[in-house]
Amino acid sequence: MNSFGLKLSFSSFGESHGPYIGVLIDGLPAGLLIDLELLQSELYKRQAGGKYKTKRVEKDEPQIISGLYKGRSTGAPVAVLVANTEQRSKDYDTSIFRPAHADFTYYHKYKNVDLRGGGRASARESVARVIAGAFAKMLLKEFNIFVEAGLCALSKLEIKPCNYDFAYAKKSELNALDPSYEKSFKKLILKAIDEGDSLGAAVFLRARGLKIGLGEPLYDKLSARLAFAIMSINAVKALEFGLGIKAASSKGSENNDSLINNKFQSNNSGGLLGGLSNGDDIRLKVYFKPTPSIYKQQDTMNIRGENVKLSLKGRHDPCVGIRGCVVVEAMCALVLADALLLDASSSLDKLKKIYE
Amino acid sequence: MNSFGLKLSFSSFGESHGPYIGVLIDGLPAGLLIDLELLQSELYKRQAGGKYKTKRVEKDEPQIISGLYKGRSTGAPVAVLVANTEQRSKDYDTSIFRPAHADFTYYHKYKNVDLRGGGRASARESVARVIAGAFAKMLLKEFNIFVEAGLCALSKLEIKPCNYDFAYAKKSELNALDPSYEKSFKKLILKAIDEGDSLGAAVFLRARGLKIGLGEPLYDKLSARLAFAIMSINAVKALEFGLGIKAASSKGSENNDSLINNKFQSNNSGGLLGGLSNGDDIRLKVYFKPTPSIYKQQDTMNIRGENVKLSLKGRHDPCVGIRGCVVVEAMCALVLADALLLDASSSLDKLKKIYE
Amino acid sequence: MNSFGLKLSFSSFGESHGPYIGVLIDGLPAGLLIDLELLQSELYKRQAGGKYKTKRVEKDEPQIISGLYKGRSTGAPVAVLVANTEQRSKDYDTSIFRPAHADFTYYHKYKNVDLRGGGRASARESVARVIAGAFAKMLLKEFNIFVEAGLCALSKLEIKPCNYDFAYAKKSELNALDPSYEKSFKKLILKAIDEGDSLGAAVFLRARGLKIGLGEPLYDKLSARLAFAIMSINAVKALEFGLGIKAASSKGSENNDSLINNKFQSNNSGGLLGGLSNGDDIRLKVYFKPTPSIYKQQDTMNIRGENVKLSLKGRHDPCVGIRGCVVVEAMCALVLADALLLDASSSLDKLKKIYE
Amino acid sequence: MNSFGLKLSFSSFGESHGPYIGVLIDGLPAGLLIDLELLQSELYKRQAGGKYKTKRVEKDEPQIISGLYKGRSTGAPVAVLVANTEQRSKDYDTSIFRPAHADFTYYHKYKNVDLRGGGRASARESVARVIAGAFAKMLLKEFNIFVEAGLCALSKLEIKPCNYDFAYAKKSELNALDPSYEKSFKKLILKAIDEGDSLGAAVFLRARGLKIGLGEPLYDKLSARLAFAIMSINAVKALEFGLGIKAASSKGSENNDSLINNKFQSNNSGGLLGGLSNGDDIRLKVYFKPTPSIYKQQDTMNIRGENVKLSLKGRHDPCVGIRGCVVVEAMCALVLADALLLDASSSLDKLKKIYE
Repeated sequence: MNSFGLKLSFSSFGESHGPYIGVLIDGLPAGLLIDLELLQSELYKRQAGGKYKTKRVEKDEPQIISGLYKGRSTGAPVAVLVANTEQRSKDYDTSIFRPAHADFTYYHKYKNVDLRGGGRASARESVARVIAGAFAKMLLKEFNIFVEAGLCALSKLEIKPCNYDFAYAKKSELNALDPSYEKSFKKLILKAIDEGDSLGAAVFLRARGLKIGLGEPLYDKLSARLAFAIMSINAVKALEFGLGIKAASSKGSENNDSLINNKFQSNNSGGLLGGLSNGDDIRLKVYFKPTPSIYKQQDTMNIRGENVKLSLKGRHDPCVGIRGCVVVEAMCALVLADALLLDASSSLDKLKKIYE
Repeated sequence: MNSFGLKLSFSSFGESHGPYIGVLIDGLPAGLLIDLELLQSELYKRQAGGKYKTKRVEKDEPQIISGLYKGRSTGAPVAVLVANTEQRSKDYDTSIFRPAHADFTYYHKYKNVDLRGGGRASARESVARVIAGAFAKMLLKEFNIFVEAGLCALSKLEIKPCNYDFAYAKKSELNALDPSYEKSFKKLILKAIDEGDSLGAAVFLRARGLKIGLGEPLYDKLSARLAFAIMSINAVKALEFGLGIKAASSKGSENNDSLINNKFQSNNSGGLLGGLSNGDDIRLKVYFKPTPSIYKQQDTMNIRGENVKLSLKGRHDPCVGIRGCVVVEAMCALVLADALLLDASSSLDKLKKIYE
Repeated sequence: MNSFGLKLSFSSFGESHGPYIGVLIDGLPAGLLIDLELLQSELYKRQAGGKYKTKRVEKDEPQIISGLYKGRSTGAPVAVLVANTEQRSKDYDTSIFRPAHADFTYYHKYKNVDLRGGGRASARESVARVIAGAFAKMLLKEFNIFVEAGLCALSKLEIKPCNYDFAYAKKSELNALDPSYEKSFKKLILKAIDEGDSLGAAVFLRARGLKIGLGEPLYDKLSARLAFAIMSINAVKALEFGLGIKAASSKGSENNDSLINNKFQSNNSGGLLGGLSNGDDIRLKVYFKPTPSIYKQQDTMNIRGENVKLSLKGRHDPCVGIRGCVVVEAMCALVLADALLLDASSSLDKLKKIYE
Repeated sequence: MNSFGLKLSFSSFGESHGPYIGVLIDGLPAGLLIDLELLQSELYKRQAGGKYKTKRVEKDEPQIISGLYKGRSTGAPVAVLVANTEQRSKDYDTSIFRPAHADFTYYHKYKNVDLRGGGRASARESVARVIAGAFAKMLLKEFNIFVEAGLCALSKLEIKPCNYDFAYAKKSELNALDPSYEKSFKKLILKAIDEGDSLGAAVFLRARGLKIGLGEPLYDKLSARLAFAIMSINAVKALEFGLGIKAASSKGSENNDSLINNKFQSNNSGGLLGGLSNGDDIRLKVYFKPTPSIYKQQDTMNIRGENVKLSLKGRHDPCVGIRGCVVVEAMCALVLADALLLDASSSLDKLKKIYE
């Protein structure tokens, strides 16, 4: 249950205030050159710090403890540990259910549960996703498949799709997809911090270079597995592929992508037909709710069933969507790499290429 | 791969133009009284016919061939067959990739594939989902959990959430959630039929009566599994939980649901905290693209790589969202019933209630 | 739970006295030419009749209802039905627990359970295994992998391994591995029938043509999955690979297979090293208990908790091991075909052969 | 693939000569009191040292890094690390395939593989099994289910079943089931060490206190899953349940266990009917081949395809069966605990006990 993926899978372990966050990656093909710089840079991208993110800054130095030999994967499971060093458990009163947090449901499900810093439900867990995603990216790169995401909306401000600049997002402090919006985004964030409040955001993801036919019909469609992966990320509340929500108010003659000279004339489908990749870019938009941890006073209850007023302390992201970009990329990379592995035995032709 | 579910699962088989659509339900607890009327009525709800749906009307009489004894489930797998009788294969030229259809990707993935009537990718397959969902509903009913969906938008017309009337939707010819919109919806559909075009739509789902804590963290969150299930339905392009897309433009202080006297003061979360059910209604909105099969001429290609003009024949739904309501209900019921079974061993307390 | 296999899997449904036994095969690569004669001949081999098997003779005509197109697999699930026509439910008093049968445990687990003719636990279910196994054999044949089994012991009579004749076993009425033993085997069986008793037996299986390295370490070793598959067959009580039980009383210097000029000098390992195929023949011996259904009077209890004397009626095999040969072959073929599919993504080299 | 179990599962990671062996246990119900002494004592039982085991003695201090809170399980995955400190990589020439070892097959499957000390295929990995098994035992104990194993044969010497003394085996240096055999066993071992050779052995396991009906028909029978688990242990070559191999030479009238006054009059079935637990003791015998690592000169080949003579160095167990007892116990405990969890949703009655 704490695992994701079918042929390429990962399992995570560790709580926010425990000694480590760990991840176990299984099914990575043998012989893959491991790019440690890529791994570290993915973790840096996820990292906190600066004026626009939480003040809990972990070093996040990954320690790979299995599955590599002479710099390449061996086919054995790859386990990676990252130490937690910056916990401040005293910031947390775990007897109070923080609004819009998992405390309430975890407590009722398990009773004996470690709620310090959110425990397992903490955003800290996304370290595991980002590490696993980095390995997936290394594999995808071998097949010239690339996954990129950036911030396309913050609060009520939206970047126009025609201005999405994925190269810029890579260097933007906020992973923003348009330099001309970055200043306004920053202002909004500082204002929210000032008010003790938080902001929602949207992330746009593009995946390039996919072969046609990735994904498994009917219930493990590529679209379905992407939705599964994305909706498992903390704070995600909605998602859409291609034309998405607008498709629902369109006519068939507007929405259908026509095909001429082996090229789709539009990409309303978001790169997916019948749930399988059609060779075009995958296009996916993900909506994050505002960080639930705010400093403004709120009404809630405690474990003893009493109504209480709560003013949170601790260090929190003013907008989880910013660091969410990296997590969205990671989860999508994992789904795509898994799809590639799953497809390998889909036809006798493919098997014969290997074994004859 | 043609299965869905963890502890309660179903597998489907059969092509649109084959002799049967079949479904195999595994993991249904023994001793459940089987409500054959409910099963048949779910199939009726899915059925075509009338002015607003496809003219291919199948009788859809389910034949249960295993897993029951004296009217109750035995713990063995329940297999159900439904005969296909109304195929007209000659309506289909399977050498042409119909725009916005799965033909293109299935052909490239498998080469030898039965594309008549969409083959496996046909909407006909949803018979299997609806049957499995009916069994899930029987189980949920034992625990007073109910899943209901209806049409909340068609083309550009949207019903206001405050007017959603789930009781009305059950008897509406279009599964519409508001009687005052039904006439306009019908007009739009007839106009689209007249133009040889099709329409998109949105479906709203509510689930009531859930215990707190259903769902499995972190990657099998109830929200993630619902998204997985929903996005596996043909023609779905987007979905949102609770406040959803609007959450992304909200502040934390607006979006967080406060809790007073064991009651959430709002349900922006859509009944989910940390991805687990919080006891409140699950609220989920699903966006369907317009039916890809339209009669207007379109540009596309054939299997030989030639550009062609295509004017489709055959019998098609003008708006897949209408019958989609039933499928959305079925898939959600399956996820919720599965979550109930999965939760049964989540704590020592629960196990002791059974075995001591 | 009523499924077996990881990448190539099958699910079965149907009870002994229900209308059908069915099987759903998922993961079969597209493009495989389906050999209907092979399928039917496997079912014939499993079939009852004659003096040495049960008198319940079913026609066992397989009806393939999905997954094929123009004589080849399409990548979609293949469902096959076989009608049950020869049930005689009145032969069964389902209120009495037949000794050494599943009645007792199924009743206690599920309460509401169909025990007529053994219900799901009936040997009739092996029709599903044999059908699925036939498809696995078709796939293996494409890679020159062959699985063969025969009767190597009956009651206390044992055929010497040096005399195993797999070609003879194919035409033997008892699937016996040595013609010189067949007459004695038949005498023993007729004597047991005469006494209203039954006999145990052992089956030997050989698999030829495997690539090196099939199987997934550590817990899905090829040996472990074969043991899993074999021990799931009704009436199997023991199994051994290669030197097997004798290995436990050997020295390392005797048991280790030395390797010279790319050839193992002995095959004590049974074709498995570290649980993976080493290119040599897989050698596996399977022990079947005597048919539990005997006509001699026995002590047992009924559902009401009363002690009763039971003299069974009905039609039963005097020795389940005979028809067991076909089932052992089928289950091993399924495991090997699955291993082949699973291995396809084990290294970057293999993936590049497909996708570059 | 590096995981075992359905509802209660574990995944292992780490190579013999890497920094850690680790294990991740998922699905452990929340609220279980963790018995750290039991955990450590299981590891001690597995430990090497003394005259009769390998000289590589690891401290094996388990470091639990997640999933506990206030001494109890929380429902989150439990990760445990054990440091490897006693490797001597220079003892290994990884360019030569050691006879009867996994080197040959792993190399051919993966090419880039860490063969130092056996890599993943090393017996060192069983630390992970023993740790996971200790948690399973803690859970089983809550339901008064106990799993015990001991050495019942070494080389050609066999202890009589009527003399099995499981209490003695717990304190025996060799885990021997009969004190009167221990001295002879020790002599045989010292002689084998002296000759640079190794010995095979057999292990007997008994499980007491099982409810009736554990196990999932048909392919996940308790017997099938036990066989799966046991055959995944390094060096196991055969296994039998109850009367086992002798059942194959018996008559039905001899083998069937009769039932009088709710008590089985014999236990030839080994506690299993239809593959499910019948409430009687599970009885299982496991055959280990002799340790493949011997000091005598052997014929083999190297990675470059040359024939070579090999005289092994390093520290090796003279008989893997001795420490194998603990591993057999662990794997069986895991299967039984998993069966208990899986059964929790098998009937509506059981579910109602929890949720009503």
